[in-house]
Amino acid sequence: MPIYTTPILNINLKKLIENYRLLQKLSGPAIAAAVVKDDAYGLGATAVTETLYKEGCRHFFVAHGSEGAIIRKVAPEATIFALQGIGEDSLSYFKEAHLTPVICSKDMLSFWKSHKIEGIRPAIQVETGLNRLGFSVDDLKTLSDVDLSEFSYVLSHLSCADEQAHFMNARQLNNFRKIKQTFFKDTPATLSASDGVFLGHDFCFNLTRLGAAMYGINTAPYRENEMHNILELKAPVLQVKPLAKGEFVGYSATFRAPTDMKIAIISIGYGDGLPRSLSNRGKVIFYENGKPCFCTILGRVSMDNVICDVTPLKELKTGDWGYLINDDYTVDDIARDAGTIAYELISNLGHNPRFIKNYQK
Amino acid sequence: MPIYTTPILNINLKKLIENYRLLQKLSGPAIAAAVVKDDAYGLGATAVTETLYKEGCRHFFVAHGSEGAIIRKVAPEATIFALQGIGEDSLSYFKEAHLTPVICSKDMLSFWKSHKIEGIRPAIQVETGLNRLGFSVDDLKTLSDVDLSEFSYVLSHLSCADEQAHFMNARQLNNFRKIKQTFFKDTPATLSASDGVFLGHDFCFNLTRLGAAMYGINTAPYRENEMHNILELKAPVLQVKPLAKGEFVGYSATFRAPTDMKIAIISIGYGDGLPRSLSNRGKVIFYENGKPCFCTILGRVSMDNVICDVTPLKELKTGDWGYLINDDYTVDDIARDAGTIAYELISNLGHNPRFIKNYQK
Repeated sequence: MPIYTTPILNINLKKLIENYRLLQKLSGPAIAAAVVKDDAYGLGATAVTETLYKEGCRHFFVAHGSEGAIIRKVAPEATIFALQGIGEDSLSYFKEAHLTPVICSKDMLSFWKSHKIEGIRPAIQVETGLNRLGFSVDDLKTLSDVDLSEFSYVLSHLSCADEQAHFMNARQLNNFRKIKQTFFKDTPATLSASDGVFLGHDFCFNLTRLGAAMYGINTAPYRENEMHNILELKAPVLQVKPLAKGEFVGYSATFRAPTDMKIAIISIGYGDGLPRSLSNRGKVIFYENGKPCFCTILGRVSMDNVICDVTPLKELKTGDWGYLINDDYTVDDIARDAGTIAYELISNLGHNPRFIKNYQK
Repeated sequence: MPIYTTPILNINLKKLIENYRLLQKLSGPAIAAAVVKDDAYGLGATAVTETLYKEGCRHFFVAHGSEGAIIRKVAPEATIFALQGIGEDSLSYFKEAHLTPVICSKDMLSFWKSHKIEGIRPAIQVETGLNRLGFSVDDLKTLSDVDLSEFSYVLSHLSCADEQAHFMNARQLNNFRKIKQTFFKDTPATLSASDGVFLGHDFCFNLTRLGAAMYGINTAPYRENEMHNILELKAPVLQVKPLAKGEFVGYSATFRAPTDMKIAIISIGYGDGLPRSLSNRGKVIFYENGKPCFCTILGRVSMDNVICDVTPLKELKTGDWGYLINDDYTVDDIARDAGTIAYELISNLGHNPRFIKNYQK
């Protein structure tokens, strides 16, 4: 009987490309840029950037300068924007890797003025309703000594684009148009991430920033997901055993067997980035005769293991695999059961150093 | 005005040593082993192991063989136990790094028998009430062909040791004693992790497995934490600005300003491992005139930023630092506000590749 102990995360780069192409189509004439910040949402910025660069993508977004420096190695000719902007602690990355900062405030603009990098035209972020980073209209009015046409892009970000009918979408679009018209008439503009692309061409302007949907997340949950799932996460069964009626399971004894049961202990836990909030409600899927069986997690998710109810399974044994994410139970499904969003889920899973990560090319 | 963009995680290894010494004292004559699985709960297994090895620690616990291979480089003479045990996918790590598997099932024992490693005496895990990994009494009875004295340690794990008066503690202690008496009379024994150590010497047997408390987590929450906080997490302010009454903040517009306010945008988010469940309830601490001001997170935590209410602060400016974890607001405090436990919190934060990680030695 084979024994395995290590979880495996399979990342399908072919399907990633298909998702990118679909989003590119939805973006119309706008440039389809790729968002690979946070190590490509945990999935590996180098592998994702390399793949999309080969596909012809020449515009990438990271959050931090340090992230930009990493992907520069596989995207030599691309424009790489850093959304957190530039500071003393990241200046060297911008210089060495020739990165484009997104300037988000007057203070940062002052910093940029005294640390300009030859050949770089920064982007500028403006506030349209998210009330996160960006210049307000009042800020822009006071920039009398600045030539605003020096910016390569004017950028803003939607707050509620995952809800098609939300009033904020029209409000932010309107605000963005006004700001563009008033201050950035001839400057290329970008407003939408994946979710905004589904709102139509009005929201796409000159460039769209494709992240979550490219990774398979449904960013337009009011309609069925048109994206391919690109992830498969599986973990091996370490032990299968009986659980007698009345016995407790896991930390703090939060599950008590109502009847004699059969349990399996799987080699994955919150130390691998699996949310602990799946305790007593998450699912592990096993396949018997080709059919999926959704087995409930019993008790608390612990750091390295989960325990699940496999009573209905006749043939499950040590060395078999339980699936945490696949086409039958996507990143959106597991995130919903964990009480969070797939963005946070895959970010935490992806950062985990213990997985065997396989890229299917 | 200085501008910074990158969060910083400071890990105090001096205080880690003090915590280890205190737990060693509480362990009485038992060997004080260190648990450095999950990359030392995300804090860096190499740095932690190196520090404790110099302090004289010679017994370490990891979960996976791959983790053991990493720390072997800085703990040449130590015994390194791998709690997930051994399998085909990890065998090479055990051989090369001379690791000691904790055998958790009859199937794994069969695997071990056909893949024994010269000079290694594995440990064996037994089931006493957690119903996770381990041999049941019935399993042990059927091992007629096995010389149980070949195991270097008999190990079990408590389920409710963080609650001093929980009935499971006495039940598991009793079960463990019976199993030891019946099957492992002369075998060294280990039952307790950090939380068990606080239950007294009865629970310590020959070796204690010190993890969470060493990292500053209060594993005995029924008493005040005697451990030192060892972490400081801070992130720079990217922008300070007014928020007008009636304006919305963040994704899905989940916060609306009840009055004119002042907000700060901080360069840290769930992409850094900060729990998204801190949305609209977490705190960022700023210091003005040496006094802490606990500022509430407004709206959703996003991937790279949080927004917080800094209305009371007169002098806050770009480039100042907000604290997410420090002596005034420990890992247990932030985990409580996030609706989880500090174990999960620091594991997700620690795995993040974007921080600047500093070790204070």
